[in-house]
Amino acid sequence: MELLAAAIAVGLAALGAGIGVGLIASRTVEGISRQPELRGALQTTMFIGVALVEAVPIIAVVIAFMVM
Amino acid sequence: MELLAAAIAVGLAALGAGIGVGLIASRTVEGISRQPELRGALQTTMFIGVALVEAVPIIAVVIAFMVM
Amino acid sequence: MELLAAAIAVGLAALGAGIGVGLIASRTVEGISRQPELRGALQTTMFIGVALVEAVPIIAVVIAFMVM
Amino acid sequence: MELLAAAIAVGLAALGAGIGVGLIASRTVEGISRQPELRGALQTTMFIGVALVEAVPIIAVVIAFMVM
Amino acid sequence: MELLAAAIAVGLAALGAGIGVGLIASRTVEGISRQPELRGALQTTMFIGVALVEAVPIIAVVIAFMVM
Amino acid sequence: MELLAAAIAVGLAALGAGIGVGLIASRTVEGISRQPELRGALQTTMFIGVALVEAVPIIAVVIAFMVM
Amino acid sequence: MELLAAAIAVGLAALGAGIGVGLIASRTVEGISRQPELRGALQTTMFIGVALVEAVPIIAVVIAFMVM
Amino acid sequence: MELLAAAIAVGLAALGAGIGVGLIASRTVEGISRQPELRGALQTTMFIGVALVEAVPIIAVVIAFMVM
Amino acid sequence: MELLAAAIAVGLAALGAGIGVGLIASRTVEGISRQPELRGALQTTMFIGVALVEAVPIIAVVIAFMVM
Amino acid sequence: MELLAAAIAVGLAALGAGIGVGLIASRTVEGISRQPELRGALQTTMFIGVALVEAVPIIAVVIAFMVM
Amino acid sequence: MELLAAAIAVGLAALGAGIGVGLIASRTVEGISRQPELRGALQTTMFIGVALVEAVPIIAVVIAFMVM
Amino acid sequence: MELLAAAIAVGLAALGAGIGVGLIASRTVEGISRQPELRGALQTTMFIGVALVEAVPIIAVVIAFMVM
Amino acid sequence: MELLAAAIAVGLAALGAGIGVGLIASRTVEGISRQPELRGALQTTMFIGVALVEAVPIIAVVIAFMVM
Amino acid sequence: MELLAAAIAVGLAALGAGIGVGLIASRTVEGISRQPELRGALQTTMFIGVALVEAVPIIAVVIAFMVM
Repeated sequence: MELLAAAIAVGLAALGAGIGVGLIASRTVEGISRQPELRGALQTTMFIGVALVEAVPIIAVVIAFMVM
Repeated sequence: MELLAAAIAVGLAALGAGIGVGLIASRTVEGISRQPELRGALQTTMFIGVALVEAVPIIAVVIAFMVM
Repeated sequence: MELLAAAIAVGLAALGAGIGVGLIASRTVEGISRQPELRGALQTTMFIGVALVEAVPIIAVVIAFMVM
Repeated sequence: MELLAAAIAVGLAALGAGIGVGLIASRTVEGISRQPELRGALQTTMFIGVALVEAVPIIAVVIAFMVM
Repeated sequence: MELLAAAIAVGLAALGAGIGVGLIASRTVEGISRQPELRGALQTTMFIGVALVEAVPIIAVVIAFMVM
Repeated sequence: MELLAAAIAVGLAALGAGIGVGLIASRTVEGISRQPELRGALQTTMFIGVALVEAVPIIAVVIAFMVM
Repeated sequence: MELLAAAIAVGLAALGAGIGVGLIASRTVEGISRQPELRGALQTTMFIGVALVEAVPIIAVVIAFMVM
Repeated sequence: MELLAAAIAVGLAALGAGIGVGLIASRTVEGISRQPELRGALQTTMFIGVALVEAVPIIAVVIAFMVM
Repeated sequence: MELLAAAIAVGLAALGAGIGVGLIASRTVEGISRQPELRGALQTTMFIGVALVEAVPIIAVVIAFMVM
Repeated sequence: MELLAAAIAVGLAALGAGIGVGLIASRTVEGISRQPELRGALQTTMFIGVALVEAVPIIAVVIAFMVM
Repeated sequence: MELLAAAIAVGLAALGAGIGVGLIASRTVEGISRQPELRGALQTTMFIGVALVEAVPIIAVVIAFMVM
Repeated sequence: MELLAAAIAVGLAALGAGIGVGLIASRTVEGISRQPELRGALQTTMFIGVALVEAVPIIAVVIAFMVM
Repeated sequence: MELLAAAIAVGLAALGAGIGVGLIASRTVEGISRQPELRGALQTTMFIGVALVEAVPIIAVVIAFMVM
Repeated sequence: MELLAAAIAVGLAALGAGIGVGLIASRTVEGISRQPELRGALQTTMFIGVALVEAVPIIAVVIAFMVM
């Protein structure tokens, strides 16, 4: 049962991270292709957003390692 | 059963955080690419929104740690 | 069974809060990028809406703590 | 079984409240950013709508407390 | 089993009420922001529609109380 | 088992009524905001449509009461 | 088992009727708000369509009563 | 088991009929509101399409009656 | 088990027929309202498409009768 | 178990055929209403596409008959 | 169990083939109605795409026959 | 259990291949109908993309054969 | 149980690869049809993206082979 | 149970990676086809986004290997 719990936790975390980071990064690429001079500002905002998205999945990964 | 409960709690939290932060941050990047001079105001609003989104998943993470 | 109940309650709460706050905050960021002079009014409305969204998930969190 | 029932009731209530309030408040913010002079009327309508949305989830919360 | 039945009834009712009232009230807010002079007529129609939406969930709540 | 049957019947009825009435009433509000002079005709049509939508959920409610 | 069968039959019937009548009546309201002089023709067509939609759910209701 | 089979058959039939007839009749209403002089031709086509949609659910209803 | 098999077969057939015929007939009505002089050609194509859609559900109905 | 297998095979086949043929035939009707002089070419392409769609469901039907 | 396996394999194959071929053939019909002189080239490409789509479902059918 | 595993593997593979190849080939047909002189380049890209899509389902088929 | 695990792993991998590669390759084909002179650059980017998409499914395939 | 856990973990990881990388890379290809001179900047952003997406699935893969 431990292993199944770790698998569910890390699997849903991967799904959540994929949706969240995918939305943010795809919009950033779109924004840079429109206004290349804002590349720095857009990437900075992207890093902040992605860090906030990844926070919970990373904890889920930690919990999965602790479970095992 | 404890471990499965922790996995479900943190997995759904990661999914919810991914959707919520993904929506907010992607719109912020889009907004900055349109009007770069509003970067400060948009990021401030983004931080408020993201903090409110992350509140419940963080508590879910805390509960998951308490369960284990 | 107690722990599973707490996990389901807080997991669905995180999902609901992510959808609700994500919708409101992303529109607020979009609105500010269009008309920056309305930043105060839009953020006030956002806080009201987010507080109303978060009310039920917060209670769900309280119930989850009471269950454990 | 009592605890699982309370968790399902309050979890679905949080999901329903998130969708309903999210739709109403995001449109209100959009409306204010277009016509700021209508801020009072739009917020009044928003409060009425949100109160009607929250009515059933609040009762679900009450039932969840009664179940426990 | 009684408590689970009450939880399912009131949970689905909250979800249905959230979708229905959310659709109606968000359109009402949008309509008022376009034509503020129709605020009375739109709100009256909103109240009628919301009352009709809420009728079945309220009965579901009554049944949930009777079940318990 | 009786109670669970009543809960499923009335829960799905609330969901169906929410979707159906929500669609009709939101379009009526939109129509009135465009052409206020048609308010009577639109509301009459709305009442007919809503009555037809509510017919089956009301019967579902009756069945739920008979089951209990 | 009889009661559960009746609940499933009438619950799915309510959901189907909600979707079908909701689609037809919302389009009729939209059509009348565009061309008020066609109100009679549109309502006649709406009645025909709604009657055809409601036929199967009504039979489902009859079956549910027969089951009980 | 007989009753459950009848309920599933007639429930899915009601759902399928709702979607199919809903699509056809809503488009017919839309078409008449654009070109009222084609009302006869459009309704004739609608009757043909609806009859073809309803054929299988009606048989499902017959089977449900035979099962009981 | 025989009856449940017949119910599943005819229920899914009704759902598939509803979606398929609904798509084709609604587009045909739309096409006739644009160009009424093509009514014959469009209806002929509609009959061919609908016949091809209905082929498999009709066989599913036959199988359901054979199962019983 | 044999009958249930036949029901699942033919039910999913009916659903797949409904989606596939529905997409192709609705586009063909739309194409003919735009350019009636291409009716032959479009119908020929439709027949090829529909034949390819129907191939697998027909085999599923054959398997269902063989299972019984 | 053998028969159920064959049914699941061929049922999902029919669903996949319906979606894939439906997308390709509907676009081909749309393309021919725009530029009839490209009919040959478009049909050739359609045949290649459809053959590639059908490859895996055909193998699924073969496996289903081997299972039985 | 072996046969069920083979059926699930090849069924999901057929679904994945249908979605992937369907998206690529339908866009290729659309591209050729716009710019026929690029037919060679578009088909080459389509073959590369389809080959990459089909890689994993083909392996799934191989595994399904090995399982049996 | 080993075989079922291998089937689930490789089946979900095929689904994920189909969605990912399908999105990237269809956009590449669309891009080449607009600006043929960028064919090299677009294909290079496509190969990078596809390689990154395929990485995890390939590992899933390896795990499936190891499981068996 | 170990093998099933590894399969679920790596399968959901493949699905998440497919969605995330697919969104980012398809937008990058679209951006390069609009403004080829930004190819370097867009690809750099794509690599950052993809690396962040792939982080959690790679960990899921590692966990799957550790489970086995």
